[in-house]
Amino acid sequence: MNNPSAEDSLIAKYFRPLATDPGAFGLSDDAAVLQALGEDIVVTTDAIVEGVHFLSDDPPDSVARKALRVNLSDLAAKGAVPAGFVLTLALRAADDAWLKPFAQGLGEDAAQFGCPLLGGDTVSTPGPLMISITAFGRVPAGSMVHRHGAKPGDRVVVTGTIGDAALGLELLKGGAVATALADDAAARKALAGRYRIPQPRTALATAVRDHASAAMDMSDGLAGDLAKLCAASSVSAVIDAPGIPLSAVAASLLARGAVGIEAIVSGGDDYEILCTVPEAGFEAFARAAGDAGIAATSIGLVIAGASVPRFLDTKGEEIALKRLSYSHF
Amino acid sequence: MNNPSAEDSLIAKYFRPLATDPGAFGLSDDAAVLQALGEDIVVTTDAIVEGVHFLSDDPPDSVARKALRVNLSDLAAKGAVPAGFVLTLALRAADDAWLKPFAQGLGEDAAQFGCPLLGGDTVSTPGPLMISITAFGRVPAGSMVHRHGAKPGDRVVVTGTIGDAALGLELLKGGAVATALADDAAARKALAGRYRIPQPRTALATAVRDHASAAMDMSDGLAGDLAKLCAASSVSAVIDAPGIPLSAVAASLLARGAVGIEAIVSGGDDYEILCTVPEAGFEAFARAAGDAGIAATSIGLVIAGASVPRFLDTKGEEIALKRLSYSHF
Repeated sequence: MNNPSAEDSLIAKYFRPLATDPGAFGLSDDAAVLQALGEDIVVTTDAIVEGVHFLSDDPPDSVARKALRVNLSDLAAKGAVPAGFVLTLALRAADDAWLKPFAQGLGEDAAQFGCPLLGGDTVSTPGPLMISITAFGRVPAGSMVHRHGAKPGDRVVVTGTIGDAALGLELLKGGAVATALADDAAARKALAGRYRIPQPRTALATAVRDHASAAMDMSDGLAGDLAKLCAASSVSAVIDAPGIPLSAVAASLLARGAVGIEAIVSGGDDYEILCTVPEAGFEAFARAAGDAGIAATSIGLVIAGASVPRFLDTKGEEIALKRLSYSHF
Repeated sequence: MNNPSAEDSLIAKYFRPLATDPGAFGLSDDAAVLQALGEDIVVTTDAIVEGVHFLSDDPPDSVARKALRVNLSDLAAKGAVPAGFVLTLALRAADDAWLKPFAQGLGEDAAQFGCPLLGGDTVSTPGPLMISITAFGRVPAGSMVHRHGAKPGDRVVVTGTIGDAALGLELLKGGAVATALADDAAARKALAGRYRIPQPRTALATAVRDHASAAMDMSDGLAGDLAKLCAASSVSAVIDAPGIPLSAVAASLLARGAVGIEAIVSGGDDYEILCTVPEAGFEAFARAAGDAGIAATSIGLVIAGASVPRFLDTKGEEIALKRLSYSHF
């Protein structure tokens, strides 16, 4: 913490109201206390950078929500219930017009997901804005869900719909998606929203812990993330590509040829849960998802082997994917 | 985590060897597990930015050490024993020539201070490098040492020597300090080292917990940080400025008039512990410090009142400080 006048007053004004946990000491100390309450603390950290993970003209409140939600998404996929977070904010200037909606969006999400601000650091930078969040969750001792653990015969399951966020990013960049949706403001808004504001599946954390053999959240695209999960589990998978859940907008863009399947399965920013569920637990998992109002779709099967997971078309033929993931570097 | 090829291989190559804690899962999962072992988890987060908190030509290993040590310094001042840390690294490119010594310095410090890497995120940025670390420590439940708690009559105590790091920064910027030390390579090296590589007082964590009524680490300068501690404790203080412990180099620069007292007490980056110790506990605290090979010097007294702490000269007259702290904004 650097400037006692500018920074401390900025923290007091915008962020102290978010520090609702007693262990945050109202952000008035140098550290916070996280009580474990006899459980394991699950720790995850994800940063977003202006121009890389969000756009300069993205609304500040959506930037805040995205920064927190990408971490909440990790916790959910690990079966952890949110416990709190710390925030590092690199700013060019202490700009009220940006900070006020940023803090408001962050506070609303912290309240909604039960994940209070515990502490943070604000630093000045001459470069792009950056928001780094480390989030904490709790699981009963030893019960965090891993990337490894998938077994042949398990179902491959995803939540929500796939590809919308990647299409939203294409749209905001003004490419083919923007042209195809020039006359459809509602569709443009839906896709941009999916890019800007992920929907962490916190409500499914317990179900993931109870039923998934392996899980992770999808941030780099279904194809690449499934390849990682399979590699960690020393298995492979076969995916029924036509069975991948798509939004109406994505399905229409695909049907019209405005985008290819690769843009959907190898795009990033889905922030849905990808998990493997043994057959015996699938019905209970799907029911729990339904109760939470979240779609959970079985899209394929885990198989033995070490090859990259295959995506099959309606004829059962393999779709050649030129790339598995979105790359920032 | 963004690029499965570039980023994952970079993580594997340089950072996996640092993830020695079983809860880090070899950095192969999306989250880490921190076991509380029945204690409170103390959480602190501090970021450093190229051109702001470190210089572009600072050696990469010293940048790594500084990033971790500023956090370890916070933990020590809170009475917490290190348990682990997570790292966010914003890079312009995955540059082996920079990353290799960075990871090596980080690994050596993680081992030295018993603070293993638990996880992290690597992101690309077009801007300055930034290293954000969230570090965890353990204290017996309810025993974290706060900024509040100082009582009139307590001694004001600092570890080490004050002002060297601020003078080191002045030196590296090539100002009056550089001129004054043009013929003294050993002094230049000593001051630059104090700026680049803080010495967290981890060995004193338990003594702080046992004896200090309030404590914090000094990152923004003795004057400003003491003002914060006093404000949090609703007290004031009187400091015997000639009693402030100085290195031989700093004392010489001050005696020769090359720098003023303000550069020393209002400079930043000391990363020494500032604490208040009741008279009855001071001898035991000083003995514990001595056993750890760390100087602990009583520089004044806590007094009742709400005024900004006063610094008195040899004649007992108040020194007017134009600024209390170093400001980055």
